[in-house]
This record gives sequence, C-alpha cells and structure tokens, in this order.
Amino acid sequence: MTLRIAIIGAGPSGLAQLRAFESARGKGAEIPEIVCFEKQEDWGGIWNYTWRTGLDEYGEPIHGSMYRYLWSNGPKEALEFADYTFEEHFGFPISSYPPRAVLRDYIVGRVSKGDIRKYIRFRSPVSNLVYSGETKKFTVTVRDLVNDSHYAEVFDYVVVASGHFSTPNVPYFPGLEKFPGRVLHSHDFRDAAEFAGKSVLCVGSSYSAEDIGTQCYKYGARKITFSYRTKPMGFAFPDAFQEVPLLLKVDGHTAHFKDGSSAEVDAIILCTGYQHHFPFLPDDLRLKTNNRLWPLGMYKGVIWEKNPKLIYLGMQDQYYTFNMFDAQAWFARDVIMGHITLPSLEEMQADSAAWREKEEASTGASYDIDFQTAYVRDLIDRTDYPDFKPEVVAEQFKEWKHHKEEDVLTYRQHSFPSTITGTMAPAHHTPWMEALDDSLEAFLANK
Amino acid sequence: MTLRIAIIGAGPSGLAQLRAFESARGKGAEIPEIVCFEKQEDWGGIWNYTWRTGLDEYGEPIHGSMYRYLWSNGPKEALEFADYTFEEHFGFPISSYPPRAVLRDYIVGRVSKGDIRKYIRFRSPVSNLVYSGETKKFTVTVRDLVNDSHYAEVFDYVVVASGHFSTPNVPYFPGLEKFPGRVLHSHDFRDAAEFAGKSVLCVGSSYSAEDIGTQCYKYGARKITFSYRTKPMGFAFPDAFQEVPLLLKVDGHTAHFKDGSSAEVDAIILCTGYQHHFPFLPDDLRLKTNNRLWPLGMYKGVIWEKNPKLIYLGMQDQYYTFNMFDAQAWFARDVIMGHITLPSLEEMQADSAAWREKEEASTGASYDIDFQTAYVRDLIDRTDYPDFKPEVVAEQFKEWKHHKEEDVLTYRQHSFPSTITGTMAPAHHTPWMEALDDSLEAFLANK
Repeated sequence: MTLRIAIIGAGPSGLAQLRAFESARGKGAEIPEIVCFEKQEDWGGIWNYTWRTGLDEYGEPIHGSMYRYLWSNGPKEALEFADYTFEEHFGFPISSYPPRAVLRDYIVGRVSKGDIRKYIRFRSPVSNLVYSGETKKFTVTVRDLVNDSHYAEVFDYVVVASGHFSTPNVPYFPGLEKFPGRVLHSHDFRDAAEFAGKSVLCVGSSYSAEDIGTQCYKYGARKITFSYRTKPMGFAFPDAFQEVPLLLKVDGHTAHFKDGSSAEVDAIILCTGYQHHFPFLPDDLRLKTNNRLWPLGMYKGVIWEKNPKLIYLGMQDQYYTFNMFDAQAWFARDVIMGHITLPSLEEMQADSAAWREKEEASTGASYDIDFQTAYVRDLIDRTDYPDFKPEVVAEQFKEWKHHKEEDVLTYRQHSFPSTITGTMAPAHHTPWMEALDDSLEAFLANK
Repeated sequence: MTLRIAIIGAGPSGLAQLRAFESARGKGAEIPEIVCFEKQEDWGGIWNYTWRTGLDEYGEPIHGSMYRYLWSNGPKEALEFADYTFEEHFGFPISSYPPRAVLRDYIVGRVSKGDIRKYIRFRSPVSNLVYSGETKKFTVTVRDLVNDSHYAEVFDYVVVASGHFSTPNVPYFPGLEKFPGRVLHSHDFRDAAEFAGKSVLCVGSSYSAEDIGTQCYKYGARKITFSYRTKPMGFAFPDAFQEVPLLLKVDGHTAHFKDGSSAEVDAIILCTGYQHHFPFLPDDLRLKTNNRLWPLGMYKGVIWEKNPKLIYLGMQDQYYTFNMFDAQAWFARDVIMGHITLPSLEEMQADSAAWREKEEASTGASYDIDFQTAYVRDLIDRTDYPDFKPEVVAEQFKEWKHHKEEDVLTYRQHSFPSTITGTMAPAHHTPWMEALDDSLEAFLANK
C-alpha cells in the first residue's frame, strides 16, 4: 500500500518537502501520497504579508510576523536554492538584499514550476494529532476553516513544517498595563509609518530589534531606544539611537532601565523573540526547545528520535534558511522512501549528543556559522540535493557580519556572487535608507 | 456514582454556574463533582483587563476585549445579581454607571464569599472534547499551560461558558494592507491615549463603535468618523464626530465611503463585532450562530437540544447580562440535578421555534427588551433564583435608551433604583466626560 505523508505547513520548509518529493518523481521514482495542510489561504508561510494582527478571519492565530518594508537582512546568495537560482527565476541577476515581496516571489516561483499546489489543502490548520502504537499510524485532525468543520485522516508519516517565528514570546514589565501608548510585540508590528515622529522603545537586541528599530528610524521615528538583557548590539548607530540595559519598569511615558537611566517613550515594541509552539502535538511527540542551533531530540536535526515517523523541518536557530530546509527535506524524503536507513535510537541519540557538545563549545558567531555549515554539509552529502558550496556561503556570512559592524544602515549596499552560478550580484539602484518603496516592481527597476 | 460536571470558563457565566451549585449546597443539597477550566490566570472572564493583545504568554488567543477607561454602558441596576446586591458588596450605595474595575470587583466579590475558587483550574484551556454515545460521557482534553502538557478527563455534563466576545470578526476593506497607520479590531483596542490628536475611523455602528469613538474623543482624539453598514447611530454627537456610510476602500490616509464622501484618517478601528467560536467542540455539538436574541438549538436558550448533557450559558445577544447568566445557570443546575425534567426533543425544538418566531417579529429595541425580559422571567419562574423584577428592569432599559438619545456623552450621569433593595443610586461625583481616572478608588471616592 502507498505510504501517506502529512506535511504541516506550506511555507519554505513545507514547500521544500514537496519539492524534494517532486524532484524524486521527476527522476522516475514512485512517491508517497502527500497531503500538505496549510492554515493560510496561500503558500509562502511567514513570507506572506498580512495587515491583520492577532487572530485571522476564522479566529486562528495569525501566522505571519512580516511587516511592510521588510528587506532581507542577509545576502540572498546565502539562502539560494541549489536547484533553482535567483537568475533562473528572474531571468537576470538581481542585487543581494531584496525586499520581502521579491523573496516570496522567488520561493513560490520554484514550486509554481512543478505540479505541486495540488497537494496543498489551504485554510486547513491541524488541530490535533494522535499516534497509535498499535497501527503505527498518525490520526491527524484538521479544521476546515471555510466549511467550519473538522475531519480526521490517517497517515504513516508526519512532517512538522509549521515554523517557529509565529508565536510571540511576550514578557511582562511592571507598568505596561498603564502605559499611555501602544505596546506591541514585533509579531504585531506592521507599518513603521505609524511611529513617525515618535520616540520608540525596542526591547531586545537581536535581529527583530535591530531591523524594526532601524526601519522606524528610516520612516521618520524621532528617537530609537534599544534595551538589552545581556549585551548591546554595539553597532555604530546615528545619534537618534541609544542602547540601554534591560527595561525595569514603565511609569507613564517614562521607561526606567537597569542602569538607573530613563527615557521618555511614545511606543514600546517588544522584540523579544518567539516560542516553539505546537499545541496540536501530544506531549511525547512535541519538540520543546529554546531557539538554538542544536535542539535535542531530532536525529540530524530532522527525525524525531523517539518516533522516526515524525519529522521536523527548520526548527533550528538559523544562519542558513531556505537551502538548509531543502537539505533537511531531501534527507527526510530519503528516510521516508527507504534510501537512508536510520541507525538505532541509541546511535541517533549519540550522534545528536555529539552535535550538541560541539554547539556548546561555541566561541562566537564565526564558530556558529561554521557549525551550521558543517551540519548542512553533513546533510547534503547524504542525498542528491545539489552541492551549493556551503563552505563558500560560510565566508559570505562572515563578510556580512563584518559589513554590519562597519555600518548597520548601509550593509545592504554590498554585493555577493552566487555560489551556484558564480554571477556577482549587481549593486542596487538605491541605498536601503532611501529606498522607501519596497515593492517588487520598484526593486526590479534596476534590471 | 457522583456526576462529574465540567464548566468551561470562569467568567460571569461560569461563575454563575459555580454559584448556582454553591447555593444548592448551602441549602443542604448534595452537589456533583465540579471542575471549572479557565484559560486565564484569574477569574472574571472578559472583565479582567490585560495590556496584552493577540496571543498570551503561552501562545493562546487573548480572551479579554476590555480596554482601559471602560465604564459600564448600561445601568448597573439592570445587571445586579438577585442574590448579592451592589449595596451588600460595597456596603453603601454607588452610582449607576461604574467603571470596569468596580464591576469586576463586584463579580468576583460574590464568588469570593463562598468556597468556590477551589473548583477552578486556572491556565487550563480546553483544547478538545469528544462525546461517546456508548458511555454517554464527555472526554475533555485540557492544555496545562504552566506545565506545557495535555491531559484528558471524563465528565457527565459539560457547561460551555466561554463567552462570545473574544474572537473578533474582522472584515477586509481594499487598501488596508497599505494603510500608513494602525489598523486594529476593537478586541485589540487598549488605550485611547494612543490616539490623542488623531483622526480616528471607527468602522461599525454598535456598542463598540459608540463607546470606543466617544472614549477616543474624551482622551483627546481630534476627529471621530463612524462608518455604518445599515444605518447611523443617529446620536447628537459634537462637531468632532461624523457618521458616514460603509467604508469602501482606503487609499493612503484617505478613507472612501459608499456615499462618495471621504475622510483623512490616522488610524482605523474595526468595531465589527465578534464570532461565536468554539474550536474545541466537535461539529455536532458546536453552536453556530450570529449574535442574536434567540440562537436556535438550545432549549430555553441553555440546553443543547440534540445532546442535553451539553449546556451553553450566555450565548445570546444581551440586554440582560449577569442576572440572565444566573437565571440560565440556576436552570441548568436544576436540569443536571434532576429537579427539572426535560421534555422530548420534539417538544424542546417546538419551544425554541416559538421563541424564534417571536424574536423575528421584532418591531425594534423596546420589543427586544420585552422579549428578553419574558425569557428571563420564564427562566427564573422555574428555579429558586430570587425574583429581581425583570419587568421593572425592562423599563430601566427603555429609560436608558431614551437617555442615550438625549445625549450620548452624558447618559451615564443618570441614576436608577435597585430593583432588589429599592435604593436609588447616588449621582456620581464627576461627569463621565471629565472622569479621566477609571480606578475603583477614584470611583468610590463619592461614598
């Protein structure tokens, strides 16, 4: 009997899994029966933009965390699909830091070429999942949003590709309940124009804080205060920026920080990260981890060790993104199709423990880049996913870090060569700070 | 064997159910074993205020729709508990339109007197529910948020008291995705101060629009535009207000309406109502209705006709609130305890159909008030819930409607007598438009 595979989510990871099977089919393999369940009305995962916040029109939590005017914060060459280059998609070379709409176009462009959309049931969030030790199968309960009904189907494998940048981590700070202005998590941030002329406090010191803070400045915010828990980002920000220690409390418009300093602020944006959140999974199948390079429990970062019929994609903290999801999806495909034989539970756990030990010996960002590079290398050597030279990408990541240290407002003006085509990206027609129109059309006007 | 009862929600309806059983116990009855599952960390339902929007710290949708500075928009005499008066709670008479914190204090004050809190498991949303026709029991699956785990328990009856003012109904209007300011649903409205100096568009013409629009004006908004689908509210608003037909589209800051008019707006608040939303219930047990005085499927508005072991509280559109939930909870209690015998399915459905027919013959607000009054009368005549003279309350509702027509900014300055104690409420020390401090302490300063 044909295997039945459920894929949960049609974002970059879920689409990678569909593409992996499609690739095998294209080479003459018989592939399993696949159903991909997607909550949103279209594919693309968090790369879809929505003006909505909180709950969607069906009462489901909004998946997307994207905001208007978001541009890639890493070079596109570091995430390029090895089997579908940017040049193939657009027909000409484009610059290294595209805005959201361009990356989304690229992601869905690849899967649009194949006959893949038919596998996806949109507006169909998974609400419950049970594994039977007796039948060795999963019963997946799905909410059919459009028909406002539930149904259940049975599968041999389940691929969890629902992402981990959708459920906000929202800490409390005393006084927030009386702050006379807007308090929001970065998940709900949509339009920087709302904060023009304002003094904005961004709590956090990672990518969201950096990007939302600089974007608010770009669109007219008067003052940006970053509040860090551990250490400042340390970039050479313009005078309108300041970095202060952790927020202690809010009293009216005044934010008080751990070093005794204070700032008058009009809005507070909690750039405090996301949770791995899988409320539809039973306790023994559910990944519980913070955001790190090597969460435990998944062999090769993919296969749920205690039940290898459950697969997770993209659950790591990420330097690598789209191409790593591909590497994982190709690996998962070959496990499902029997081309890769899994070792014993003990061997899988020992392998994971070794990776974890290596992760914990980190000496900083360069180490981490090399660590994830080695992981991606390990994966792509095991399947027919094309070699996109991760070791070269690693050097690009290090250069990118260096560019940011030089100037966090201009690093997006640099160009990188594709590790697949070798083509050097052209310079963009407009510096990021002056590029107020983030549309695909405006971006591609430099062709 | 003792019956086991699950109550879903510890807001006004769920607490009414607990109080109903407690009252029976106080009179010497043996009551069932009760577990009340509550998502929030405290009781009070939507009367709890939170600064959070969207998802809570555990990734669960925020239940509350309360905003700062919310005052009752109907006289407290019309919602007074028949078995626990405002005067008994506060020790002295208070004025007729208290702010949120005062009403919450009153609600939880009643249940704090009894030994009721022990029945409630906080941070415990119900995620799934199954009924077995074989065992005639419900299996209720609960998410233990604090321990990040799930468990299931079996019950004979389930009381759904999770409310219907938590899941926003959020329509799309063309251009919202490019509006250069904040777009939010009234569910996410928190602090009017955020809109000081701004031109605010409130889409909607019911209680949320009226109250949020006037509150934004009170806290300094420059201009309020109400957009209605069917007809304007028609109140004699000050010059800073206007009522226009339905929003058609948004172009930059310009909102275009059905009559060809337009307005420049800085923020858009969708006061577009709520959905009855019970994603944890299977299709055949799930109430599907719009917000109306007589949803079908529930005998006496309470008992799920097709499976009378399932009970809904407070699912109607509401003139009556707390005292109606009590009347329903007392009725449900007596059904569960066998003091009220249910007629056949056909008889229950015929009874409901007759109520629905009467509802549909409505000639306007006075008719609707009398309709719901007759419903409450029908319920309280069947149990030992004290007679709080709903026919007198009906006249108060009509007077309240009249006061609003006179002046929607001053109607809260009127006073009503308690239908239970007969005491006339004192005038409040400050007109609503000048009462910027909504705390319990400030309100009670007129004692």
